[in-house]
Amino acid sequence: MDKELSSIHYDQYLQLQKILGAQHLRSAGFNKPAHDEMLFIIVHQVYELWFKEILHDLGSVMELFSDGTVEESQIGVAISRLDRIAKIQKILVDQIDIIETMTPLDFLDFRNYLLPASGFQSFQFRQLEVSLGLKRERRVSYTQCSYSGVFSEEEQHKLEQLESGNSMFDLVEKWLERTPFLQFEAFDFLEEYKKSVSKMLLREEQAIEGADYISEQEKQLRVNMLRDTNSYFSGIFDKDMHEKKVAEGKLKLSYKATISALLINLYRDEPLLRQPFMFLQKLVDVDELLTTWRNRHAQMVLRTLGQKIGTGGSSGYDYLKITAETHSVFYDLHNISTLLIPRSFLPELPKELKKKLNFNYSKDR
Amino acid sequence: MDKELSSIHYDQYLQLQKILGAQHLRSAGFNKPAHDEMLFIIVHQVYELWFKEILHDLGSVMELFSDGTVEESQIGVAISRLDRIAKIQKILVDQIDIIETMTPLDFLDFRNYLLPASGFQSFQFRQLEVSLGLKRERRVSYTQCSYSGVFSEEEQHKLEQLESGNSMFDLVEKWLERTPFLQFEAFDFLEEYKKSVSKMLLREEQAIEGADYISEQEKQLRVNMLRDTNSYFSGIFDKDMHEKKVAEGKLKLSYKATISALLINLYRDEPLLRQPFMFLQKLVDVDELLTTWRNRHAQMVLRTLGQKIGTGGSSGYDYLKITAETHSVFYDLHNISTLLIPRSFLPELPKELKKKLNFNYSKDR
Amino acid sequence: MDKELSSIHYDQYLQLQKILGAQHLRSAGFNKPAHDEMLFIIVHQVYELWFKEILHDLGSVMELFSDGTVEESQIGVAISRLDRIAKIQKILVDQIDIIETMTPLDFLDFRNYLLPASGFQSFQFRQLEVSLGLKRERRVSYTQCSYSGVFSEEEQHKLEQLESGNSMFDLVEKWLERTPFLQFEAFDFLEEYKKSVSKMLLREEQAIEGADYISEQEKQLRVNMLRDTNSYFSGIFDKDMHEKKVAEGKLKLSYKATISALLINLYRDEPLLRQPFMFLQKLVDVDELLTTWRNRHAQMVLRTLGQKIGTGGSSGYDYLKITAETHSVFYDLHNISTLLIPRSFLPELPKELKKKLNFNYSKDR
Amino acid sequence: MDKELSSIHYDQYLQLQKILGAQHLRSAGFNKPAHDEMLFIIVHQVYELWFKEILHDLGSVMELFSDGTVEESQIGVAISRLDRIAKIQKILVDQIDIIETMTPLDFLDFRNYLLPASGFQSFQFRQLEVSLGLKRERRVSYTQCSYSGVFSEEEQHKLEQLESGNSMFDLVEKWLERTPFLQFEAFDFLEEYKKSVSKMLLREEQAIEGADYISEQEKQLRVNMLRDTNSYFSGIFDKDMHEKKVAEGKLKLSYKATISALLINLYRDEPLLRQPFMFLQKLVDVDELLTTWRNRHAQMVLRTLGQKIGTGGSSGYDYLKITAETHSVFYDLHNISTLLIPRSFLPELPKELKKKLNFNYSKDR
Repeated sequence: MDKELSSIHYDQYLQLQKILGAQHLRSAGFNKPAHDEMLFIIVHQVYELWFKEILHDLGSVMELFSDGTVEESQIGVAISRLDRIAKIQKILVDQIDIIETMTPLDFLDFRNYLLPASGFQSFQFRQLEVSLGLKRERRVSYTQCSYSGVFSEEEQHKLEQLESGNSMFDLVEKWLERTPFLQFEAFDFLEEYKKSVSKMLLREEQAIEGADYISEQEKQLRVNMLRDTNSYFSGIFDKDMHEKKVAEGKLKLSYKATISALLINLYRDEPLLRQPFMFLQKLVDVDELLTTWRNRHAQMVLRTLGQKIGTGGSSGYDYLKITAETHSVFYDLHNISTLLIPRSFLPELPKELKKKLNFNYSKDR
Repeated sequence: MDKELSSIHYDQYLQLQKILGAQHLRSAGFNKPAHDEMLFIIVHQVYELWFKEILHDLGSVMELFSDGTVEESQIGVAISRLDRIAKIQKILVDQIDIIETMTPLDFLDFRNYLLPASGFQSFQFRQLEVSLGLKRERRVSYTQCSYSGVFSEEEQHKLEQLESGNSMFDLVEKWLERTPFLQFEAFDFLEEYKKSVSKMLLREEQAIEGADYISEQEKQLRVNMLRDTNSYFSGIFDKDMHEKKVAEGKLKLSYKATISALLINLYRDEPLLRQPFMFLQKLVDVDELLTTWRNRHAQMVLRTLGQKIGTGGSSGYDYLKITAETHSVFYDLHNISTLLIPRSFLPELPKELKKKLNFNYSKDR
Repeated sequence: MDKELSSIHYDQYLQLQKILGAQHLRSAGFNKPAHDEMLFIIVHQVYELWFKEILHDLGSVMELFSDGTVEESQIGVAISRLDRIAKIQKILVDQIDIIETMTPLDFLDFRNYLLPASGFQSFQFRQLEVSLGLKRERRVSYTQCSYSGVFSEEEQHKLEQLESGNSMFDLVEKWLERTPFLQFEAFDFLEEYKKSVSKMLLREEQAIEGADYISEQEKQLRVNMLRDTNSYFSGIFDKDMHEKKVAEGKLKLSYKATISALLINLYRDEPLLRQPFMFLQKLVDVDELLTTWRNRHAQMVLRTLGQKIGTGGSSGYDYLKITAETHSVFYDLHNISTLLIPRSFLPELPKELKKKLNFNYSKDR
Repeated sequence: MDKELSSIHYDQYLQLQKILGAQHLRSAGFNKPAHDEMLFIIVHQVYELWFKEILHDLGSVMELFSDGTVEESQIGVAISRLDRIAKIQKILVDQIDIIETMTPLDFLDFRNYLLPASGFQSFQFRQLEVSLGLKRERRVSYTQCSYSGVFSEEEQHKLEQLESGNSMFDLVEKWLERTPFLQFEAFDFLEEYKKSVSKMLLREEQAIEGADYISEQEKQLRVNMLRDTNSYFSGIFDKDMHEKKVAEGKLKLSYKATISALLINLYRDEPLLRQPFMFLQKLVDVDELLTTWRNRHAQMVLRTLGQKIGTGGSSGYDYLKITAETHSVFYDLHNISTLLIPRSFLPELPKELKKKLNFNYSKDR
C-alpha cells in the first residue's frame, strides 16, 4: 500500500491481457471466420470504454452540484469535465466513419450469429441517458416492452434508482433556481427585462411603420417577425402559462430556473457570471453532440441495414431518427436564444450589484 | 495568349483585391460596428466558394455521364471527383463549429440589419440541389411562395432549365439501366437471385424451427425478422408493384436501374464492377453528407435563434430538420442494403461472364 | 445612414459577384483548361478569407491588451476570440485533405503557368506571423533574400511597422509582468515555491533510497529523472541565467513574466486566476495549431511535388519542416509544464490573498 | 459448434466484464485517487484496441500479397483494408484532443505511480512499425539499449521473427518488381519515358530563352528549377547510382520497383492500373498519417511534460520529433512525384498494350 515507487509495466497497468483477449469472433466459432467481425467487436468495445469515461466525468460533475452549494472554483472544474465529455462525443461521432468501411455485404457474413445482441443492451448508454435526465415516460419505445427489459434484474434496479434520484438536469435546475441575483435590493431583474422588451418592440414597430423606403411586402415580413417575437416573450412573462407548458411536457425547465438562465446569458460579461455562462454553454454542447451522434448513427444504420429489422428487434433507422428529435434533455437551454435581446437594450445593473459580481481585487492590471 | 511563361503574382492570380475587399459590415454603416459580423460574412463567402467548387466537380461528372456511354476509365475520374465533393462537404459540416463561436447575443448586435437576406437566397445551393436531382414537387416549402421566388428572373430561368434537363440522378439511373450483364446468354440474373433468396429463406426457416436450444420468444423474434425480410424481397420481384411505388413517390429509382444497382453491389468483387460499385458508394456518401449538413445546420440555427423566425421568413429550425428527412436524392441507393444476401448464397456467375468481367491481361502478377 | 431597415439581398450583402467572379484559370487562358486549377484557386482564396478573419480576431485581442490595464471581463472576450482562431485553424489543417484530392499528375497540368506565384507571397500570412511575435531575425530564410522582398513597397513598409510595434507576444509578456500577486504582503511566491520544490525533491530522493523493493536499474532511472528535474528548477531560480538564455535566444519570455505564468498555472483554481489560465492555454492552442498546420502543409507538399523546387523558389518540404520546428512563438508557455509541481506540494496562499482572488459576492449558491 | 442460432447478449459478446473491469487506478491504491487517471488508462486502452484492429487489417493485406501473385480482385480488398487503417489513424490523431483535456498539473497527481510504464512498452505498436517495414538499424534509439529490451523474451523473439520475415514494404516492392508492362514487345517504357523527359526539358529551356517578356531574375529562377528537375531525372536513368543510394540508405525502394511505381502513377487512367494506383496512394496515406500522429504526439508531450524526461526514460518530445522525420517507411513512394511529367508529354502506349490493360468486355456502356 505504501510502496508508491513499486514499478509497473505498461501491459500490467493497462491490463492488456484482458483488453486484447476479449475479441472472440462468433463467426470463427462456426468455422466461417469473417474478417470484419473483428472491427465490429472492437468498435463497440471502444464505444463502451468511452462511455465509461463519460460516466466517470459526468458523475463527478453531478457530485459537485449535489451539495446545495457550488463553490465558484468548482464551476471551472465542471466546465473542464463537460468539455472533455464533448471532445469524447466528437470522436464518437467521427469514428462512425470507421464503421462505415464495413460494407453491408460484409456485415451479412456474420450478422446472423449476433442475435439478439444489440446496442439496446448497452447498460452504460442507458445510464448515461438517465443520468443526463431522460425520463422513462419521455422515451420513445421500439417494442411494446420497457427499455430496461433487456437487462438483468440487478441492472434494472440500478436504472430505477438512477431514475428516482437527481439527474444532471435536476441538479442544474436547482442550482439555477438558487441564483441570488434575480432580486437584488430594489433591482427586480424580470421587471427591468420586461420594460426593455417593451421598449425594444415599440421601437421596432415604429421603425417599420416609418420606413417609407421598404416595400409593403418587406414591412409585412418584419411585422410578422415582430409579432412572433412578441409571443415568445409573453410566454416568459406569464408564470402560470410556463407552468402549464411544463405540466404538458412542452417545456421542462422550471420558471425560476429559466429566468436565471436568461439572466446568466444576458449578463455573462460580468466576471461572476462568466463561468456559469460557459457551464450552461457546455451543457448545450453535450446535448447537441448527443443529438448529432443519434442522427449520424441513424444514417449509418440505414446504409448498413436498409430497412431490415435490427438484431435487437427494432426498425433501426426510424427509431434512431425519432430519438434524435425527442431525447434531447437540455432543449430549453438551447431555446434561451429566443428570449435574448440586443446588448443595447439590456437593463443596466445597479452599481452595487455590479461590484458584487466582480472580484475583491479591484485594481485592474 | 501564348505567353505561357509570363509571370504572375499570388495576389493577382487569386484576385485578392476582390476577395479581401468584399467584406462590408452593415453594422459599421450604422455606426455600430459589430465585431462578429465579419465572421458572419466571411463564413458565408467561404461556403459560396466551396459551393462553386462542388458545382464545378459535379458538373464535370454529369458531363462524363451525359454521353450515352461511359468509358471505364471515366468512372475512375468520376469517383475521384465525387470523393473530392465528399471531402469538401465534410469541411462544410465541421466548420459549423466556427459559426457556433458566435453566441446568440453577439448575433443580435447586427441581425436586424440583414433582413431579408438569408441562406434561402443562395442560388448556388439551389443549383446544387437541382443538379443532384431534387424535384420541385418534392421540396418542402417554408412559405406559400415558390422556392425560386427570391431569385432574379434570369436565375429563375436557369433553375427551370436545370430542372427540365437531366440531373445527376437521371444520368445515373440511365447508366444503370444500360448495364448489359442482367441477361448474359443463358444467365438471367434476377431469376438466379430469386432462387438464391428462396433457398436462403427456406434454410433459415428450417434452422429456426429445428433450434430446440433457443427460447420461444427468440424464435418469434427471428421468425418476425424473416417475414419482414421476405416482404422486402417480394417488392423487388414484382415489377408492377415497384412501378406503382415510383408513381406514388415512395421510390424513385426505376425497376431496371434498381436491379442493376443490386447486381453491382452483389458482384462488386469482379474487376469490371469494382469501379461502378465504388461510384455508387460515393454517391451515397455525398447524399449522406448533405443530410448530415442539414441536420447540423438545423441544430446550429436552434442554438443561435431558438424559435425566432429566420431573416428569410422561415421557421428556421423546423424547416431545416424536415429537409434533412426528405430532400435526400439517392435514398434508394442507401436502401439497396435491404436486398443484399450473404456471399455464401450468391449465385455463381457463368465462367464466360466472369471472364468478360476481367481484364484482357489475364496472368496475375 | 439611418436607414437601418433598408433591405438587402444575400448576393449583395456577401458581394458574391466579386467573390464568385474571381476565379480565372490561367490554364484556360492558354487553351488548355485544367479541371483542377479551379480547386487550386478556390482553396487558396478560402485560406485568405480565413486569414482575414484570424487577423480581425487577433487584432481585437491585441487592442484589448494594448492599454496597460486589462479588465477582467475583457479576458473572457479574449479567450472567446482566441478560441475562434483555434477553431478556424483546425479547419485550415483539416482542409488540406481537400487539396490532397488533387494528385501530383493533375497539378502538373497547370503548375507551369503559375510561376512565380507562391504562398510566400501571402501578405496576410506574414502579417499573422509578425502579429503573433515572430521576429525577422528568427526567421528561417529560403533564399538569400528577405522574406518581405516579394511584397510591394507599401506592404513592406506595413510589415516593418508591425515588426517595430508590440506583437501579441510582447503584450502578453507585459501583461504577465504586471501580475500583482507575486509579492503579496509577507507572501513571496518565488520564495515559497522554492521551498516546496526543495521539499519535494528531498522527499523523492529519500523515497528512492529507501525503496528496497525496486531494482538498482529502476532506482537509477528514477535518480536520473530527479537530477534532470532538479536542473530545470535551478534555471528558474536564477534570474541571471534566465536572462542570459534570453539574450542567447534560447528563451524568449522575460524572467518576471515566466514567474507570473507559473503562478497562474499553479493557482488557476482561484477564481480570479481561472480566466488568465484559460487565456494562456488558448495561446498555446493557437501556437500548437500553427505548428500542426506547418507540419501538415510540409507533408502535402512532399506528396504533391516530391523534391521539386516550389514555384516560389524554395525547396518546399524542407523549408516548411524547419519552420514547423522553429517558428513557434509561445514555446516558453508550452514549456511551463517543466516547472509544475503536484498540488500536494503547492504552497498554501495566505487567507487574505485567497480572499482577494475571490468574488465580492462570497456566499456560494 | 453448429448451434449457429444460439443467442448471445451484448455484454457477453463484447466481453464487457473484462473490458470495463480493467481500469485499476494506481493512485486509488495509494489512497489518493486522481480523477484524471481514469482518462489516462482508458485512452491508452482505446489506442491498443485500435492497434489490434490495424494489425488485423494490415496482416490480411500482407497475406494477400505474400503469394507471389496477387489477383486483381484482391487489390480491391487491399485498398479497402488500407482505407480502413487510414480512417482509424485519423481518429488516433484526432483523439489526442481528448488527452489534452488533461492538464499538466492534473497529470502530476499520479504520474509518479506509473514508472517505468511508458508507451515504449507497447508491443503492438512495435509490431505495427516492424510489419510496415521499419528496420532495426534505421530506428532512432532513445537510450543505449535496444528498443525491444523492454519486452519479455517471448515478445522479443516474435519481433525478431517479424523483422526477419517479409514486411509490407518488402511485399509491395516484390509485387512492383513483378509488373509485366515495363517491357511490352517493342515498347520499352523507360526508354520512351527518357525521350519524353528530354523533349520536355528542351522545350522548357527554349521557351525560357525566348521569353523576352520576363525579367532576367525570373529567367534565372526558371532555369534553376529546370536544372534541379534535370538532376532528379538523371537519378532515375542511372541504375547504378540508384543502387548506390539504396546501399547508402538514402533510398529504400529497388530500381525496378521504382520504375514500376512510376509507370503505374503515369498510366493510372488505364483500367488495369487504376486499382494498383489507388493501392499505392493508400500506402502513402497510411505512411503520412503515421507521421502526422508522431508529430501530434510530440506536441502533446511537450505540452504535458515540457522538457521533463518521460516515464520510459526518454527525452519525450525530442525523440518523438525525430522519429516523425525518420521512421517513414514509404517515403520513396511519396517521392515519386518528383519524377512525374505532364500528361501532354506522356509517351503513348501501343494499341495492343492499351487493349491488354482494358477489360474483355469492350463495349462501353
